[in-house]
Amino acid sequence: MATTDVKVIGAWPSPFVMRARIALNIKSVDYEFLQEQLGAKSELLLKSNPVHKKIPVLIHGDKPICESLVIVQYVDEVWASGPAILPSDPYERAIARFWAAYIDEKWFPSLSGIARGPTDEAKKAAKEQVVEGLALLDDAFVKCSKGKAFFGGDRIGYLDIALGCFLGWVRVTEKTSHLKLLDESKTPNLVKWADSFCADVSVKDVMPETDKLAEFAKVLMAKFKAPPPS
Amino acid sequence: MATTDVKVIGAWPSPFVMRARIALNIKSVDYEFLQEQLGAKSELLLKSNPVHKKIPVLIHGDKPICESLVIVQYVDEVWASGPAILPSDPYERAIARFWAAYIDEKWFPSLSGIARGPTDEAKKAAKEQVVEGLALLDDAFVKCSKGKAFFGGDRIGYLDIALGCFLGWVRVTEKTSHLKLLDESKTPNLVKWADSFCADVSVKDVMPETDKLAEFAKVLMAKFKAPPPS
Repeated sequence: MATTDVKVIGAWPSPFVMRARIALNIKSVDYEFLQEQLGAKSELLLKSNPVHKKIPVLIHGDKPICESLVIVQYVDEVWASGPAILPSDPYERAIARFWAAYIDEKWFPSLSGIARGPTDEAKKAAKEQVVEGLALLDDAFVKCSKGKAFFGGDRIGYLDIALGCFLGWVRVTEKTSHLKLLDESKTPNLVKWADSFCADVSVKDVMPETDKLAEFAKVLMAKFKAPPPS
Repeated sequence: MATTDVKVIGAWPSPFVMRARIALNIKSVDYEFLQEQLGAKSELLLKSNPVHKKIPVLIHGDKPICESLVIVQYVDEVWASGPAILPSDPYERAIARFWAAYIDEKWFPSLSGIARGPTDEAKKAAKEQVVEGLALLDDAFVKCSKGKAFFGGDRIGYLDIALGCFLGWVRVTEKTSHLKLLDESKTPNLVKWADSFCADVSVKDVMPETDKLAEFAKVLMAKFKAPPPS
């Protein structure tokens, strides 16, 4: 058992949980990973996040912190002596926060919609929105990275974490829906970035293998389609 | 014409625009207020926020900053020598960010739903969600304010701005839907806080009068109900 006062309540396939874990890895903070089971919620989760009852929750000492982007900012501020996650310049911080909000509010719902849209038309529209969004993010990458490997420059930063956590699910979606989303001809910068991101020391041990994640996706989809228990 | 390098693209009835204006007022920053007209979008807005095409946009020098909570954090960081908007303690910052996200993602959509829900049942459910949310926020107020007048303590802070900007619309909703949302018996702390918030020097000149806002709401509702132009 880890002797640490930092715990993450989560589950390995969750991109949002991955954000918290990558942030802690960047800061070299040891943590205990408490995995929730699909379809069940632990007492600790319900007690720690009574409003949303969702993972991830970071527990630092006896304090629960909820919502993945809030956790990433908290980790950056508490372990301030480690590598910075948010840019130091207020305008660059604002740009990173803007795109992170775009990813969560617009782009990720479309990514989910490719597999889970109610009709074929809705799925097609979702796919187009994802591709358009990636083109916008490719442009944003050019502006933010200034020729370096990451949105954050030489190191993985806030926006890298916000987008990069979805790369496993992008690959699963490409595989199961027979699509090309990250395309060398349309988003050449993001294609290169995705490789750098997944190879990074703070990421590689928490980024799930595509095949394993695809297996999990099958279980998840079956669960969505199953009638509710009577 | 104001000789300032700070501009806010907005509209007086918008709660999100109010957030940017209150933040600038707290920091005593002069700004030019460029009002958009209902149903039209200026060239400057389209150029400054090409992704969402929405107000508010803060323009600082030649740099546009979009999304109201991103703007508030930017203002706090750029004019750092003025009164602090976010708490200085990382955990208190995380709590403020958590509730601000809750307000935008859960609570405000319900508030809108009271007048705009598709059926009477949906409107009733929205009303219940708003009341439940206010009870949660009343509890949060007790924890955050520690006996002081505001979520932020002695002064208006991030969470005060995030919630307080909706008080005009809460009052309009109470009036037009014949409801009591902020109720002395259920949310006694928020009732008192709302008075303090609206009376604050950084707020009182940007908080619209209820009657004027109710008139605007009528125009807006008529617009929603009108068939699209052919």
